[in-house]
Amino acid sequence: MPAAAGPEIERLVQLLARLPGLGPRSARRAVLHLIKKREQLMAPLATALDDALAKVSVCRICGNIDSVNPCSVCADPRRDPSLLVVVEDVADLWALERASVIQARYHVLGGTLSPLDGVGPDDLNLAGLVGRVTGSDVREVILALDATVDGQTTAHYVTDLLRPTGVKVSRLAHGVPVGGELDYLDEGTLAQALRARTPA
Amino acid sequence: MPAAAGPEIERLVQLLARLPGLGPRSARRAVLHLIKKREQLMAPLATALDDALAKVSVCRICGNIDSVNPCSVCADPRRDPSLLVVVEDVADLWALERASVIQARYHVLGGTLSPLDGVGPDDLNLAGLVGRVTGSDVREVILALDATVDGQTTAHYVTDLLRPTGVKVSRLAHGVPVGGELDYLDEGTLAQALRARTPA
Repeated sequence: MPAAAGPEIERLVQLLARLPGLGPRSARRAVLHLIKKREQLMAPLATALDDALAKVSVCRICGNIDSVNPCSVCADPRRDPSLLVVVEDVADLWALERASVIQARYHVLGGTLSPLDGVGPDDLNLAGLVGRVTGSDVREVILALDATVDGQTTAHYVTDLLRPTGVKVSRLAHGVPVGGELDYLDEGTLAQALRARTPA
Repeated sequence: MPAAAGPEIERLVQLLARLPGLGPRSARRAVLHLIKKREQLMAPLATALDDALAKVSVCRICGNIDSVNPCSVCADPRRDPSLLVVVEDVADLWALERASVIQARYHVLGGTLSPLDGVGPDDLNLAGLVGRVTGSDVREVILALDATVDGQTTAHYVTDLLRPTGVKVSRLAHGVPVGGELDYLDEGTLAQALRARTPA
């Protein structure tokens, strides 16, 4: 920590160093940058943080984060009420929204099942999911989960969990990423892409 | 930008993305992390920013950043008043202070001469340096500048600038970094380390 600076700066460095992607060194660089750009960046950032603290909350329906509650996605009447996309966390929801490939609503699990990390079914928002599907307009639940062991374990679990409700459950396709080069792909992806080949 | 989130969150992402080392994607991750750790991280960070904004300023003597002015380094009576270490920016000052290898005062130039980037002598705090050296207790000016072309150009310029004052001007030694492996070092460093070899 910069012993040459005051306690206010040390505190700021320590807090910024706790952000993902930043360590002590990059946090110090960030603080110096903030102080250099006092009016253009540091003051607006302080205001933006205060604003977000005052207004942002977790949507009580889907688990998204927004300054309105229910969130703007849940409140959007143009979205297909029969489609529900299940995601691990809010970052995935945002990624799908940026791609703007589907006009559906979402359900944020808040994680994936991970026995090794001690994450069990009770740690995820699964009861909320069953509640939203049961006796509702939802006709299809799309599991948009990571193609990792934990993601796929969770997908299996959710599929079993939703079976009694009779809702259709689907998953994202596996295959070659758009722009992907074959010789950089792992064998699992190549095998899946071959098996699920489509007419040209 | 996350269209699925409110304008407060978008603003926060945009501002964080302007910090060095963060881009749009890592800024989004940082914002989600902040919102998850609302009480432990987001609120303290907002307070720390407000605190720093209110108290932190650039030291009028040396150019360091601190919550007191003159800064705690300039005000420290235990430091040797005959030694003045010239650094490019505050990060370098902090690095030397963390190493705690010298009990000197500092002078922050605020950059290095870089004709290609349009940085000339008038853009650096050089007048202040000459002023601090002239008719003062300073006996030696140590140029702790980067071993880059710009850093070394600046070192030459400062040496010439200080010649009329009669003060002794020195530079950091070149050589093998401690813990460094020879076969990863460039030839320039190896040549300098050989030339400046010391009795074993």
